Amino acid sequence: MIPPSASRTTEPDIRRERRAMIDTLLGPGHADIVLQGGEIVNVLSGEIYAADIALQGEYILRTGDCSELIGPETTVIDVSGKVTMPGLIDAHMHFESAMLNATEFTRLSLASGTTTVVADPHEIANVLGPAGVREMAEECSQLPNRIHLRVPCRTPDVPGVETAGVDIDFNSIPEMLDYPTVDGIGEIQGVAAPKLVYAHTPEVFDDVIASTAYAEAHGKIVDGNAAAIFDNELAAHIIAGGTEISCHETTTKEEAVEKLRNGVFVLMREGSTQRNMAECIRAYTEEGLDSRRLCLCTDDMLPDDLAAKGHMNDVVRRTVAAGIGPAVAVQMATINPATWMGLRNVGTLAPGKLADLLVVDAVETMNPAIVYVAGRQVALDGELVIEIPRYEYPDSVKHSIMRGPVSPEELSIAHDGPTAAVRVIGLIPDQNLSAEIDAELPVVDGIIQASTAEDLLHIAVVERHGHTGEVGRGFVHGFGMQRGAIAETVSHDTHNIIVMGTHVVDMAGAVNAVIALGGGIVLFADGEVVDQLPLEIAGLMTDMLDAREMASASARLTAAAQSQLGVTVHGPFMHLAFLSLATSPTLKITDRGLLDVTSYTIVPAAM
Amino acid sequence: MIPPSASRTTEPDIRRERRAMIDTLLGPGHADIVLQGGEIVNVLSGEIYAADIALQGEYILRTGDCSELIGPETTVIDVSGKVTMPGLIDAHMHFESAMLNATEFTRLSLASGTTTVVADPHEIANVLGPAGVREMAEECSQLPNRIHLRVPCRTPDVPGVETAGVDIDFNSIPEMLDYPTVDGIGEIQGVAAPKLVYAHTPEVFDDVIASTAYAEAHGKIVDGNAAAIFDNELAAHIIAGGTEISCHETTTKEEAVEKLRNGVFVLMREGSTQRNMAECIRAYTEEGLDSRRLCLCTDDMLPDDLAAKGHMNDVVRRTVAAGIGPAVAVQMATINPATWMGLRNVGTLAPGKLADLLVVDAVETMNPAIVYVAGRQVALDGELVIEIPRYEYPDSVKHSIMRGPVSPEELSIAHDGPTAAVRVIGLIPDQNLSAEIDAELPVVDGIIQASTAEDLLHIAVVERHGHTGEVGRGFVHGFGMQRGAIAETVSHDTHNIIVMGTHVVDMAGAVNAVIALGGGIVLFADGEVVDQLPLEIAGLMTDMLDAREMASASARLTAAAQSQLGVTVHGPFMHLAFLSLATSPTLKITDRGLLDVTSYTIVPAAM
Repeated sequence: MIPPSASRTTEPDIRRERRAMIDTLLGPGHADIVLQGGEIVNVLSGEIYAADIALQGEYILRTGDCSELIGPETTVIDVSGKVTMPGLIDAHMHFESAMLNATEFTRLSLASGTTTVVADPHEIANVLGPAGVREMAEECSQLPNRIHLRVPCRTPDVPGVETAGVDIDFNSIPEMLDYPTVDGIGEIQGVAAPKLVYAHTPEVFDDVIASTAYAEAHGKIVDGNAAAIFDNELAAHIIAGGTEISCHETTTKEEAVEKLRNGVFVLMREGSTQRNMAECIRAYTEEGLDSRRLCLCTDDMLPDDLAAKGHMNDVVRRTVAAGIGPAVAVQMATINPATWMGLRNVGTLAPGKLADLLVVDAVETMNPAIVYVAGRQVALDGELVIEIPRYEYPDSVKHSIMRGPVSPEELSIAHDGPTAAVRVIGLIPDQNLSAEIDAELPVVDGIIQASTAEDLLHIAVVERHGHTGEVGRGFVHGFGMQRGAIAETVSHDTHNIIVMGTHVVDMAGAVNAVIALGGGIVLFADGEVVDQLPLEIAGLMTDMLDAREMASASARLTAAAQSQLGVTVHGPFMHLAFLSLATSPTLKITDRGLLDVTSYTIVPAAM
Repeated sequence: MIPPSASRTTEPDIRRERRAMIDTLLGPGHADIVLQGGEIVNVLSGEIYAADIALQGEYILRTGDCSELIGPETTVIDVSGKVTMPGLIDAHMHFESAMLNATEFTRLSLASGTTTVVADPHEIANVLGPAGVREMAEECSQLPNRIHLRVPCRTPDVPGVETAGVDIDFNSIPEMLDYPTVDGIGEIQGVAAPKLVYAHTPEVFDDVIASTAYAEAHGKIVDGNAAAIFDNELAAHIIAGGTEISCHETTTKEEAVEKLRNGVFVLMREGSTQRNMAECIRAYTEEGLDSRRLCLCTDDMLPDDLAAKGHMNDVVRRTVAAGIGPAVAVQMATINPATWMGLRNVGTLAPGKLADLLVVDAVETMNPAIVYVAGRQVALDGELVIEIPRYEYPDSVKHSIMRGPVSPEELSIAHDGPTAAVRVIGLIPDQNLSAEIDAELPVVDGIIQASTAEDLLHIAVVERHGHTGEVGRGFVHGFGMQRGAIAETVSHDTHNIIVMGTHVVDMAGAVNAVIALGGGIVLFADGEVVDQLPLEIAGLMTDMLDAREMASASARLTAAAQSQLGVTVHGPFMHLAFLSLATSPTLKITDRGLLDVTSYTIVPAAM
């Protein structure tokens, strides 16, 4: 099987195939496959009705009564009682969030009916630059689903307040847009806060515009990132992105209304920890806005959810459960994103389209029965029936920690006097934003101490890309941790080493164990590693586990964090990893220090 | 002003313009123009509400409350009480039908708010081949509206039963697709009747597929022509055209439903003589199908209507009058066709889009108040305020009649016996289809005679492209003509000379007068020219009249046909011109003879 992402069907092939289909239709001849006796979700007309589907080669011949197209050589699939729809599209996601390579993600995603994935390799790009993107593109080009990569146009997100492994700007764009499977530019986070960026670093706009204009001139797509901006700011963001951008960071009805009115494709996020569909959908259900630019996406999926619930089929199920008509819900994961992406050959069930299909028991339950890609059955009852070989990344991406050990002293904050008034990052569960809290902490031997009683822990970010070796230090509230430390190389978006703990000695131990591991997550207490998960690809993902193994490893680590370190928040590693995200409010931490995101300035931890 | 059709904005220009818009939005600065105090039709959200529109250079800055963007240098246009919408799009039309060149058509069309026109130069192509298409493309590239030409992939429509000036096939496609303003392939009439073509000339499919696959590979669009076909036939037609085709030949609700379900963009025709919107729209109003692939078009406009009623504004007005919500009706002439055409920069009012705007008094009346193209006011109260110079085609396209005079004998049908049983073409008013009627006619001196008493006239098509000189002969019913003859070089689709009359002597006189004129329409009686209209461009259009002059000339000729020749049908010249259209049922006439369109065979006039 030629991987669809890599396939370059030639014009002579297309001519031959189309003539052969016409021979079958008018000969009359017989289809290769007929799915008979079920219903279809016709996302073109917005209807669900009884119809067969006839396939030939990689394509759909037609829908409707296809009995005349059945001959002795036709494979007839009885789908009575079932519903067939176009293969689902995830309009925006990051493989890295599941800590799996694209191959292992695909293994479960495809089996549950997601045949097209728009993936943004933003995390590996922050660590390894274009070289990392190229490796992921290479992997994606060999997979049987359709992957559309969107390359970042800038790393780090906010220059001057954080340090990425490689700085990407317009100069890298022409090369990256030529990598296999790349069809556009990923979320333009560098101008996510237009007023702030314009006030501080207006030249960032020139760079972003250079990239997006280049992309547009080459027929590529641009993803926006327009969290909570309106009016002139929203217009400026849209214009920086080009004429038709998306936004997957819409969290309120008011935002959804404003963005739809301004031509933004609103990708309603329903990932593992961030769920915005129920709110965004109100623009359609309550305000009656046209739904054609509402799409669904996951952004960040935990491996546990992928293994237990599926991928876009679960998102569609939740959308139907929220009261949206089944045909409209399926449109949001098929024709709507396909239209946005300019894809004319997938996302609908019509003559001549690629036969990417998902057969389910019912749209309300979305349990996958059969999945086809390009006319070939790839999954049955939620399990792949094709071989997808394990994929191993080259060594070049597996040694991404470019620093030596850290000492407890480097993680400490000195202070004069018996106590210190400190600025604390307040964790907000299920959000990638944070609060800013004022607190008072004791000082011992001139060093500010954590307070487990008040749930005030140390937090630090240790530069690990070999540039400065700097350490940003501060305090955090909300994890409930009682002993030890947690360190990880997943730390948005520049992915330095983030560490939190009750004491700087265990914190240094955790960081140094992560370094020794070559990247990953380490739980550390009383001088010993409690548990660990190696993430050897850029410190973000692993080749060594499949999705189900990763799901159980992730569950094991979470349980250990809770039972042995006393952590109370769910999903502690993903929550911790977002505390360094420099583009979302309010108080964050980077390798440069505590970051006030409302002003893009580094502020002291102790006042 | 750079003609939009020809403009090739460079990437550095775009970068500069976008940065300048961002400077205005975030500076904050001031817009060039603000349309203040009115309502907008937001085709993105499907709403109509109060909002200003701010423009800068060629673009829309934003909509909403734009008062902060007004400065001393801003031109503020008071549009209170008015409604602004995106400039309208005619999704399918032929300039030739109005007998005007594109320049004169544009003069009225643009003034009434149609800023984008998809034009199919199918008629000039049948006469002059690629050379004619190139001349029209050259003209279109100099006009201020946005013209998208769709080149024919085959002339004649039905090889073997009619003779075109130049035979076009795949070999001409690469060259023609490179002409200025060309964005696709026009209606694929050659496979409009798939079963018939497949049975008689299956190789036509290979040729059409070669052209459409080439077009697709080069990012071009393909128009279908799927009149009254269903099931396997419709699927075969769609596949021959590629994956996403249009059809402007849909005349029943059932057809509209079937086509929408199969992914066809249904271009509801509301031209001068063929009106299908009221029927097609029932797929939406009665069956509840998604309206996003329903578009509006005119196909063929008479100059009289263009002058008296306007262009797409009149079509939208009629659609609203038919009970369609105003925002939905406007979508059908803006975002829907723009989406089909893959145009991301027109068809909506959003930041960064080209400022093509139509301000009207109300969506119910659609009287044009102001029209903008690319941020420049081009019309006010239905009159252009920019200069569009008259355009003269080169001499090379003005001498397209390649034959000498015809004799009365060549137009006669010999027969033995006192009477003859004849096959008669039955005119059906307001349709391009015809009936087949059996009749009995007297024979004098071995020649079959017409019968004005029974409204049975002679009809003939005289080959005029210099290939065969042949004459096809027959009889016609339905015009009510009492004396003389009418001849014209407008004669779909190959545009030989079609002539009808009460007597072959006057018919020969009419044909020879048309030849002497170098193409056009001639009314002839009792040995003299009664009236005539020169159409010197390919025998189809003229440079010499503007639309209003053409409207009165056309009205004058029609009046003369009625008062002096006794014609009773309205629009006699357009009706006559369609009696040679070989792709629409039932009995037609070409230069090869009477054509039975249901079997694509030439049949004798006398049995």
